[in-house]
Amino acid sequence: MRVGVGILGGGTVGGTLARKLIDDQAVIAAKSGIELDLVRVAVRRLDKARSFPGDYATTDAAAVVDDPAVRLVVELMGGIEPARSLVERALSAGKPVVTANKELVAAHGPSLISKAAEHGVSLLFEAAVGGGIPLIRPLAESLAGERLTRVLGIVNGTTNYILTAMESQGRPYREVLEEAQRLGYAEADPAADVEGGDAAAKATILAGLAFGSWVEGDRVHREGITDIQAADIAFVRRLGYCVKLLAVAENTDGGVAVRVHPALVPLDHPLASVRGANNAVFVQGPAVGELFFMGPGAGGDPTATAVLGDVIDAAREVLSGTRVVPRIQFGAGRARDFAEVETQWYVRLEVVDAPGVLASIAGAFGRHGVSIKSVWQEGRGGAATLLVVTHDAAEADHRRAIEAIGGLDEVKQVAATIRVIGPDV
Amino acid sequence: MRVGVGILGGGTVGGTLARKLIDDQAVIAAKSGIELDLVRVAVRRLDKARSFPGDYATTDAAAVVDDPAVRLVVELMGGIEPARSLVERALSAGKPVVTANKELVAAHGPSLISKAAEHGVSLLFEAAVGGGIPLIRPLAESLAGERLTRVLGIVNGTTNYILTAMESQGRPYREVLEEAQRLGYAEADPAADVEGGDAAAKATILAGLAFGSWVEGDRVHREGITDIQAADIAFVRRLGYCVKLLAVAENTDGGVAVRVHPALVPLDHPLASVRGANNAVFVQGPAVGELFFMGPGAGGDPTATAVLGDVIDAAREVLSGTRVVPRIQFGAGRARDFAEVETQWYVRLEVVDAPGVLASIAGAFGRHGVSIKSVWQEGRGGAATLLVVTHDAAEADHRRAIEAIGGLDEVKQVAATIRVIGPDV
Repeated sequence: MRVGVGILGGGTVGGTLARKLIDDQAVIAAKSGIELDLVRVAVRRLDKARSFPGDYATTDAAAVVDDPAVRLVVELMGGIEPARSLVERALSAGKPVVTANKELVAAHGPSLISKAAEHGVSLLFEAAVGGGIPLIRPLAESLAGERLTRVLGIVNGTTNYILTAMESQGRPYREVLEEAQRLGYAEADPAADVEGGDAAAKATILAGLAFGSWVEGDRVHREGITDIQAADIAFVRRLGYCVKLLAVAENTDGGVAVRVHPALVPLDHPLASVRGANNAVFVQGPAVGELFFMGPGAGGDPTATAVLGDVIDAAREVLSGTRVVPRIQFGAGRARDFAEVETQWYVRLEVVDAPGVLASIAGAFGRHGVSIKSVWQEGRGGAATLLVVTHDAAEADHRRAIEAIGGLDEVKQVAATIRVIGPDV
Repeated sequence: MRVGVGILGGGTVGGTLARKLIDDQAVIAAKSGIELDLVRVAVRRLDKARSFPGDYATTDAAAVVDDPAVRLVVELMGGIEPARSLVERALSAGKPVVTANKELVAAHGPSLISKAAEHGVSLLFEAAVGGGIPLIRPLAESLAGERLTRVLGIVNGTTNYILTAMESQGRPYREVLEEAQRLGYAEADPAADVEGGDAAAKATILAGLAFGSWVEGDRVHREGITDIQAADIAFVRRLGYCVKLLAVAENTDGGVAVRVHPALVPLDHPLASVRGANNAVFVQGPAVGELFFMGPGAGGDPTATAVLGDVIDAAREVLSGTRVVPRIQFGAGRARDFAEVETQWYVRLEVVDAPGVLASIAGAFGRHGVSIKSVWQEGRGGAATLLVVTHDAAEADHRRAIEAIGGLDEVKQVAATIRVIGPDV
């Protein structure tokens, strides 16, 4: 029961997977009954040192896809093109595809899944979200019968590493980012991670599988961590919170809302304990209650393990001739306008310390339908810092209130605004 | 794409599932493309009120299995017989079977899985372990390529509910058990839960899927919570621990060890935060690192959700004519002798408060190869309580040390012994 495997991409995950396929062939065969044969690995350059023997490497990715000995294709190149064309080429040739490419799946998931189904094969992407944590399969299969209401979690390891380091060491964002880049936790170009794009792609995929409706990328609200200040991390800790970059997907009567933004998380919440590059996701539904998944969100080994689980499945498909994953049905799904989404906010205001300041601030919030939950004052003598946490109110109301407050004479600066999640999530 | 479903067992989970199949048919069809038709439900008695219309009910379970309109069978009766015979009857007729029966799967998993494979159908049992938490599928499929080393967790909701209540309310075991029975958290006959049998069955299944070797029931070390005293729960809290009933499966060079026993868990460990009837499981392996799954461990709704996920899969199998789950291969697997397994122990000793007591106790531990990590003394004036936590040592050495200590003149009583897990697990 041998199945030939072709890999597109010889980077960290691709290299680790190639190594695993060579070294662990007997172990995998003993457990699964399937012998996986690495055939070829498409790489960008042949002159780079690899963790697998050089004679597997080729720069001709299309030839790997077309090789008759390659019965299933693993796409680990990342990015949209040429990944998309190569994946379509493999599917059209009736070869199942395993990918860890969240950008590709988020942008073209439904069409690629349809194309796979058309040709009677599967597109598997367990490693696209949550690295080594099994999330896709539970959502698509184990929870297929549940009307899920919310998926919420930490799905980007780089930003969690940075926020954790900022908190534990009291250091500013820029400094921690540079260190993370030196240590390999952040890319040379960190934009996709720190600006929330990576998390948004993953949130789109999770929402699609959880609710059966795919939200277009431009309907996903996206804020990164680039504006998070060390001062706020220290302030909110005293209020009983830490700061995390959250991906939130909610299915309400008003539609599906998918968003990525930093949020204050209560310190006794399980998400607060997710440190370093780990990922963790909550899944909520009326019948299943609350499920929590935590594990390594990135890294060659965990991600390659998730890919390998999919590869074994795809190999079963090749051997049996029948698709191993269900055809997922995507409905139209109404995207909810982010302006309607209700959250709490934390607002840091630099104000003049004069009588009546709090009253005019509370008045401005109130006029826009936002009520205050708690206020904390720091400093005295001319200038003061006010830390305000509001009750739930619509995004649009919050923004209008903040604009009005920024215009008050007593307010020198709206120094920070960060959303807050309650203890019940 | 209609598929007829027969259910064996009309209790909490069976009733909830029947209700779901009737009420949520359209939702399930929209998400999965499959229309599930409830055909019949086998019950023990017809004169009991059910959550589904009475005309579905029959007392003839074999007739449900044999009904040509029933294309897949859901076994929710529990116990070994007649469940085993009925499951075999269905598999032999080429009907896939979904079961939540941990006792049956633990005792006869490999032979039932073989029989299913023989007839080209699947036996699915996601709900047998961890209620609504997807665990079986990740272990059997997503992590199929990983050499897992350890699975450890809280897999019995009843005992966790009791231990949580004993801790938070400072009440004795017997009293809390009786309350749990009144509230429906514990059975009228609680033996299977409180004596560890239920957890042991689940541990066997988890170990079998994680390591590919099925450990015979009599090789699973099993201790329940019936001897846990409120006093120890209070004492260990001051030492920074809580008490949990743990299922532990380890794959070492010396073989596979599966055990269920109460253990002290550090208060800052994620398992310490698992309260009430929740379940949580850690899965560890060299590549994947550490994965953590948490959710509702029991209850009609979460369990029925897990069953429904399997039912949708089984229906896909019926429609495609090809098995949806991989044939799991079980090796011979050497069971490791529990006497060799190394753990730490917490020991509470009632001693005479005289000079030299600690020296003779330390001497007795040391003569049996057990070294002491910490000692805490309570009380003064004639009698004292010593709380001892040891370093890792083999089970057999610990037992011999405790026997020797029990025989010392200065020791009035070995009042409690509970194993301890370290902060690294």
